[in-house]
Amino acid sequence: MNFAEYAKEYIPKINNAIKIVYDSKINSMDNNFLKDYYIELRDYFLTGGKRIRPLLCIAAYNAFNSMKDGKIIQPSIGTEFLHNASLIHDDIIDKDDFRRGKPAFHYRFKQYHQRYDLKKMVSEDFGTSIGIIGGDTSYFLGLEAFLSNDFNQDLNFKAIRYYEEAFNQLCQGVLIEVDMVNQKELSMEDYIKMIALKTGALIEKSLLIGANYAKVEQSYKNLLSIYGINLGIIFQIIDDILGSFGDENTTGKPTDGDIKEGKKTCLLITAMNDLDDQQKQKLNTLIENPKMNDDDVAEVKRLFEEADAANTCKTIAWFYFKQAKNTLSKLKEKMAPSEAEVFEDLLNFVMQRKF
Amino acid sequence: MNFAEYAKEYIPKINNAIKIVYDSKINSMDNNFLKDYYIELRDYFLTGGKRIRPLLCIAAYNAFNSMKDGKIIQPSIGTEFLHNASLIHDDIIDKDDFRRGKPAFHYRFKQYHQRYDLKKMVSEDFGTSIGIIGGDTSYFLGLEAFLSNDFNQDLNFKAIRYYEEAFNQLCQGVLIEVDMVNQKELSMEDYIKMIALKTGALIEKSLLIGANYAKVEQSYKNLLSIYGINLGIIFQIIDDILGSFGDENTTGKPTDGDIKEGKKTCLLITAMNDLDDQQKQKLNTLIENPKMNDDDVAEVKRLFEEADAANTCKTIAWFYFKQAKNTLSKLKEKMAPSEAEVFEDLLNFVMQRKF
Repeated sequence: MNFAEYAKEYIPKINNAIKIVYDSKINSMDNNFLKDYYIELRDYFLTGGKRIRPLLCIAAYNAFNSMKDGKIIQPSIGTEFLHNASLIHDDIIDKDDFRRGKPAFHYRFKQYHQRYDLKKMVSEDFGTSIGIIGGDTSYFLGLEAFLSNDFNQDLNFKAIRYYEEAFNQLCQGVLIEVDMVNQKELSMEDYIKMIALKTGALIEKSLLIGANYAKVEQSYKNLLSIYGINLGIIFQIIDDILGSFGDENTTGKPTDGDIKEGKKTCLLITAMNDLDDQQKQKLNTLIENPKMNDDDVAEVKRLFEEADAANTCKTIAWFYFKQAKNTLSKLKEKMAPSEAEVFEDLLNFVMQRKF
Repeated sequence: MNFAEYAKEYIPKINNAIKIVYDSKINSMDNNFLKDYYIELRDYFLTGGKRIRPLLCIAAYNAFNSMKDGKIIQPSIGTEFLHNASLIHDDIIDKDDFRRGKPAFHYRFKQYHQRYDLKKMVSEDFGTSIGIIGGDTSYFLGLEAFLSNDFNQDLNFKAIRYYEEAFNQLCQGVLIEVDMVNQKELSMEDYIKMIALKTGALIEKSLLIGANYAKVEQSYKNLLSIYGINLGIIFQIIDDILGSFGDENTTGKPTDGDIKEGKKTCLLITAMNDLDDQQKQKLNTLIENPKMNDDDVAEVKRLFEEADAANTCKTIAWFYFKQAKNTLSKLKEKMAPSEAEVFEDLLNFVMQRKF
């Protein structure tokens, strides 16, 4: 089964499990504002999203469990809640009012504030406040996925440990990234460490949570870890490339955001390492400016091209791709062929994606 | 043993357990920014704080466990992390740069930002960003208290459920409060529901987590719930009174904050219910103004006094005090006398406190 077919089969089930969580919250609230709050959260969660993390959790479980029972759906949504929680807080941090072409969660409540007769707060502060709490709620709803489901307490307790570890690593990755924005000199090694934490860890833990419920032996869990972290690294490198050189109509993201923010992408780090001193100095001056205009962005892109940064980054991604591929060939000895195909197909997709 | 003696015995142990959590984080970090981040969190946690929640957790455990072993210290800090996590996020929401007379957590990183050569973000945004993540981290560190300690998995799993429930209720209380600020008409009933969630629930869950580890039977857990929620309600009512009529030198808090924010305190709700229509209209106009000056605040206080709001609120607090006292007399049949005294003394203190 290829990844698209797998997604087509399981995404409705994943979305339904998410919907049930929110419906039960909405129905149990007797306060109107709380009802609206959970309705907006439900809508935010169910609008778009590739569901990569629950799909990987389900595939890891099914790959090692010939029963392929549906028990895994319920806990699989845990890391999706964690992922969305971090997006809600990220959008506040990055001041992004839109996500996936739809209003960001905090922005929804900036708009909601207009409905009040009495406006003691500024709409923006109101949005930020509810956004902060919305992220918090989502982190805890992810935890709930392991508190009641069809597995025993011992397996759930282990899943909670993975969940907690995933949060710690993701949060460390985000912190390192925020710090990096203010740092001058950076190595590719620092960058890879950062994205392994920020993006790799949660993908890895999604796989390990699935494997945990299927009681997979440790040696195969270790292989799943390598596959997952590498997949995350490739995903983030390609994301950085698309973030400056993607087709805006295909990606749905403007190609000046990363550059203006001064984000330490793999493109920028490559260019800073590979350009000659004069060009490097020019790039530095452009990037250090907190208020870049469109011409500055175009000039930064030209310098990226001069350094052949996109191709160098793709070569780095290929290195992690080969590692993941090798790991996968070892995993295949033990995995169900249908899920082996899913893992392989996803790896190819992440490497070649244009969106 | 009175509450002060109990606090004197256990606070150093509680603080030591908190310190160990952070020391282990700090020592395991190889990134300088992450090291600084955990150092600031440790310092924030260890600077002040009454430790009411862990003390109640410990007292509930010791009250029903003649062994009085120190095993409870480790998990008792869970709800203290949750409490501080919510304070970190609250200070961002309320734009309070100081807490307990010291810099708020986000404000520490606003200052930290000055150290960077390269300033791609505004200091304030940097502080807010790290503050949001700092709260998130603290929520998860609270969870860790139940993941490794000297109790069995079954008891820890139940503690996690209480922790999760405490978060949900606290967060609902905070949301209702944010919504209330923008609402015109409010009843005392709405207010009591809100503070029972915002302040009562975490105190209640701290007691239940302690009782859970001591394997207390359900009927006594129910009594602890009533005691805890009532204690929280009294605490919050007195907090509201001190927030406008306390001695700033004793409380360490300015007495114009609540009024300027338009916080729906029990004083305001009482005044709105008890004043005649003309005075009520005057109060309404003053409160609706998003930019109140000092004269407006003085006039609001005068109207509170005219409505005798502080005394009415104290009468309401007495109602909950008597309920808690009755519940305590039933609990005493089963509790160790030393902890019974602690519970009684704390109840009296919370009712009579001036700070």
